[in-house]
Amino acid sequence: MFKFHMPTKVIVGENCVLNNPKDLMLGKSALIVTGKSSGKKSGALDDVIFVLENAKIPYHVYDKVENNPEISDMAQGGRLARECGADFIIAIGGGSPMDAAKAIGVYAVNESGEDGEFKLYDIFKGEYKNKPLPMVAIPTTAGTGSEVTPYSILTLHNEKTKKSFSCVDSFFKVAFLDGRYTVSLPLQVARNTAVDAMCHLIEGYTNKKASPSSDYIALEGLRIIGKHLDALESGSLALDACTELLWASALGGIVISQTGTTIVHSMGYELTYFKDIPHGMANGYLVYEYLKRIDSKRVADCIGALGIESLENFKEYLEKILPRVCNFTEKEILDWSEISIKARNVASCPYQATRELEIEIYKNSLLKE
Amino acid sequence: MFKFHMPTKVIVGENCVLNNPKDLMLGKSALIVTGKSSGKKSGALDDVIFVLENAKIPYHVYDKVENNPEISDMAQGGRLARECGADFIIAIGGGSPMDAAKAIGVYAVNESGEDGEFKLYDIFKGEYKNKPLPMVAIPTTAGTGSEVTPYSILTLHNEKTKKSFSCVDSFFKVAFLDGRYTVSLPLQVARNTAVDAMCHLIEGYTNKKASPSSDYIALEGLRIIGKHLDALESGSLALDACTELLWASALGGIVISQTGTTIVHSMGYELTYFKDIPHGMANGYLVYEYLKRIDSKRVADCIGALGIESLENFKEYLEKILPRVCNFTEKEILDWSEISIKARNVASCPYQATRELEIEIYKNSLLKE
Repeated sequence: MFKFHMPTKVIVGENCVLNNPKDLMLGKSALIVTGKSSGKKSGALDDVIFVLENAKIPYHVYDKVENNPEISDMAQGGRLARECGADFIIAIGGGSPMDAAKAIGVYAVNESGEDGEFKLYDIFKGEYKNKPLPMVAIPTTAGTGSEVTPYSILTLHNEKTKKSFSCVDSFFKVAFLDGRYTVSLPLQVARNTAVDAMCHLIEGYTNKKASPSSDYIALEGLRIIGKHLDALESGSLALDACTELLWASALGGIVISQTGTTIVHSMGYELTYFKDIPHGMANGYLVYEYLKRIDSKRVADCIGALGIESLENFKEYLEKILPRVCNFTEKEILDWSEISIKARNVASCPYQATRELEIEIYKNSLLKE
Repeated sequence: MFKFHMPTKVIVGENCVLNNPKDLMLGKSALIVTGKSSGKKSGALDDVIFVLENAKIPYHVYDKVENNPEISDMAQGGRLARECGADFIIAIGGGSPMDAAKAIGVYAVNESGEDGEFKLYDIFKGEYKNKPLPMVAIPTTAGTGSEVTPYSILTLHNEKTKKSFSCVDSFFKVAFLDGRYTVSLPLQVARNTAVDAMCHLIEGYTNKKASPSSDYIALEGLRIIGKHLDALESGSLALDACTELLWASALGGIVISQTGTTIVHSMGYELTYFKDIPHGMANGYLVYEYLKRIDSKRVADCIGALGIESLENFKEYLEKILPRVCNFTEKEILDWSEISIKARNVASCPYQATRELEIEIYKNSLLKE
């Protein structure tokens, strides 16, 4: 048995926000959730404000979302949504603002506090008394796919890792994909996020939960990214390519909405948490060692869809676009593997993933000296 | 710019209704909409009743849906839904019961009558004061794709054709695809409906509105049908093949939800209305002549995805599985083309479709002596 579910309406193309104002306005008062700079630098915030002001829809901008949002900040965002009477949310940014919006949407209508019924950690239950606020997503990076998944990945300082929640109402109602918002990204950010999208597609296709409803989408996404590998290396991404990469990234999100990810992601979280390595880059360091251990035609399918000759060539490509940014000790690897082996997506790995195996993968990862 | 939207949750596989009872029960009282025999013969009605009775959900069975449902009957169905207090609908059957359910869902909550505000034909406006009832679909043929489209095709006797309405709330919430419900279909019905699915995929892929969000889905659907062409010819469709054809048919529905159909469908409606030719068969008579006139690599892509060597071979295949069931006169063709050229989807044809051209296509169709 397999399933397919992805209720988000996706609108793709230049000026799609300006040209589809009705799809942006899901209510009478908006909370815009974004990072410190991504909304402004990308031009997306200006487009959104233009549409809202034109329609006389009041809005508040919450631009305090940090990279890797922490759960207590999200509850604060929920309080702000209540205080300003927002009845819908517009998320602008990379994975962090989009994941933050999903959490804020829950906290906004399920009041959390010391005396409240709804405790901070109840968000991980995935079932809430009140439906989250309806939400729109405008990604400003092409990697996370969060705009079409129900997942929100939050950071938990006391568990020293990230943890995700999801519920069917955490899907965005609408997602706008416009290459104008990603065309000015710093090259390394474009690369890291493209590698993240690649990993979603690869981990979905090689996943234990891979099915006829995810396989063909995964290969389509990889084919699209494959067209732009040279430009990602040289840094010559044109506007059209940026829109195509946003679409490929959304396909990655659609795939993992069906399959989930694997140990590449759960192991990558530790690199991000302890070494501050950007999420996509962290996955990129690990994905070759993950693939190497899979005994299936599916690895060749992925590499072939990317238009790359061999798994070794794929490794070389990753080494070129992902510079080494730090090193690690044996002790660190032991700590990381202890946490990462407990992750839920370990079960989706196509082979038996043990702590010993994860230690091996960390050791041989592209991060090493 | 392109869009993608298909909010229906699709559940595929043997016993999927019995194994996912929560997804079937969208409310507290069900109206089951089905044809005279399809629900019973397929075994789907028994499965549905088993689940509902087990959960003590009251239900009414409306099994009066004829082939090609007429609009006034739908309003009657809506009245019945009100009278029995149904708050959700379960559609079981081919395209007719599913399209009927969509209309009944609208009439149930938007009361129509001589004094009522909501007139019978207001259904074609696509915007309603009250949201249609939530609905579940269980197809018992693998062709229509109606389980994943917002379209409902209704018959209008005073306009001597069919006309469709759609609105975003006309998507089914859930669709269950189980080959057990189609494995006992008469061979010609299996063929006709498979040809209908094929036409959705082909018309979507060659459509003026084809886009990166529909193309790869169309080719995937054609590849799946291609695997089963021999079994469709010989009549040796196994259970697995039936489930795969249901999935391919759903992919066809997903495609036309983005692109709409073309003149194959609008011209086919007349063959159904005036000659009582089953819908899929009618499309099959026309699709070769439609494709022959397209000057694009896309025709070869479709034929190639089916695993067929040439367009001529495709024609031969259709002639084998679609027997001629009647003939027509010059006068009839004039009448049909007069109606069909007015259809909305004429504009989606990849070439300029004129009445003269449609006359040519009818004349040369596989229906001719």
